[in-house]
Amino acid sequence: MNFADQLVKEIERKDSRVCVGLDPVFEKLPKQYSGADDPAEAAFDFNRKVIDAVKDYCVIVKPSLPFHLALGEGGWVCFGKTIRYAKSKGLLTIADAKANDLGNTAAAYANAFYSDVGADAITANVFMGSDSLKPFFDYCAKDKGIFVLVKTSNPSSSEFQDLKAENGKHFYEVFAKAVANWGERFVGSEGFSSVGAVVGATFPEQAKKIRRELKNCFFLVPGYGAQGGDANGVKNCFNEEGLGAIVSASRSVLYASGGKDFAQAAGSAAKKMQDEINAVLGL
Amino acid sequence: MNFADQLVKEIERKDSRVCVGLDPVFEKLPKQYSGADDPAEAAFDFNRKVIDAVKDYCVIVKPSLPFHLALGEGGWVCFGKTIRYAKSKGLLTIADAKANDLGNTAAAYANAFYSDVGADAITANVFMGSDSLKPFFDYCAKDKGIFVLVKTSNPSSSEFQDLKAENGKHFYEVFAKAVANWGERFVGSEGFSSVGAVVGATFPEQAKKIRRELKNCFFLVPGYGAQGGDANGVKNCFNEEGLGAIVSASRSVLYASGGKDFAQAAGSAAKKMQDEINAVLGL
Repeated sequence: MNFADQLVKEIERKDSRVCVGLDPVFEKLPKQYSGADDPAEAAFDFNRKVIDAVKDYCVIVKPSLPFHLALGEGGWVCFGKTIRYAKSKGLLTIADAKANDLGNTAAAYANAFYSDVGADAITANVFMGSDSLKPFFDYCAKDKGIFVLVKTSNPSSSEFQDLKAENGKHFYEVFAKAVANWGERFVGSEGFSSVGAVVGATFPEQAKKIRRELKNCFFLVPGYGAQGGDANGVKNCFNEEGLGAIVSASRSVLYASGGKDFAQAAGSAAKKMQDEINAVLGL
Repeated sequence: MNFADQLVKEIERKDSRVCVGLDPVFEKLPKQYSGADDPAEAAFDFNRKVIDAVKDYCVIVKPSLPFHLALGEGGWVCFGKTIRYAKSKGLLTIADAKANDLGNTAAAYANAFYSDVGADAITANVFMGSDSLKPFFDYCAKDKGIFVLVKTSNPSSSEFQDLKAENGKHFYEVFAKAVANWGERFVGSEGFSSVGAVVGATFPEQAKKIRRELKNCFFLVPGYGAQGGDANGVKNCFNEEGLGAIVSASRSVLYASGGKDFAQAAGSAAKKMQDEINAVLGL
């Protein structure tokens, strides 16, 4: 099934627009993991317990490649196990790698993330243009998805993404337009494309503009919670039916308590986020 | 020692401006590796033999993260072992990850690549702006380096990088200027900064423009060989003293023979490239 169709189906089934980012940092894990022999093993146990706790309140999880590689030699194995565990619990998955490389190298990324690890979607940088994304699009023709960076949630995203091009359009609008064009071929029966866009929760005005122009595009909206994005800020990312976006939080869910009850606290934080977003959408 | 100083010292000692990209693809390895139980183990053996063969003709090697992750579960370990083996043979190393993420996530990348794996430099995407690169700059204040994408070697790099901004400058010139500014703080005693730029061998005119404006910036120049860049094409990346750039080839060196004599052939290809580049620079 088309990835965007799978996503809409899960959003409607669970009445949730929440994505949980899995960014395990060994030093930040609850005390019970301190002194663990293998940071990657500890992180997998942590991820697994978080997944169990949040799985009813979110539709998708997004393990971060850099945070997993920083766990040491076992980091890449932990990344794969986490994706597979989440899928076994009925969740969709995004490999958050912000990948971007030459055609044949991008193909290596696509095979690694979609085939070997089995992720449903990947995040990718737009910078190198269409040939650097083609291997991902080839998988979108099957059942996979991609979220392409358009307007990121970090403060210095304005340095380049907000510059104006000669035609008077902001660069993020140029990227958005390209994403829309690339995605046309992959629009599913629910009206959304498997080629989505990353649009930060921290820039509601820009989100509004992009939402208006990209009717068929699913937004992955990071920056909710610890980065300062709130439910009102993300409202602009949705269409009038309350569809078209998934909102992601990491730290505010993973480290909601920091203690023994971290999983329970993560579940409560995810549920609270689900409710806040639905409320602001009038759902 | 400042990374750019280390690089100049090695270039002068070996009279080489060559970087060898390590892009192992299991299916493309010489026949002797077919049927190997573990693609990552096979790739490490291949990398090791290539490193032994090219080490006198190049100053630096650049293992590609995506190609290593595509080797399967052992890919990340193979990546680390390859970096450490190259260093043990007196080579400098670049982790080719084209990394780009939020500040705290970029810090995870920086720790993984510089501290855990021990790479001397990393490639990074410019798209998210300065706060996404700051954790790398922090390491440049010590002895590490970074090469930031400015004008990439792939055909579709023109789609966004060649657009003009409102001020009439091409976007790649805007990135180049930013890289120059970021690098000012990290100029070593040889006059070059540890913050370098990735400038494709396939776009000599753009390279000329960037070289003129970025006196202190080291270029990492991919695209030589299989991608169509030649020695004349890379001439524009160097200054009048024949410094300021390292030129990278991957496929044309790694798979120079494809047979039993792959290592010898890789060594010959690297030496040929060293000689061609020196010749065109009149050295």
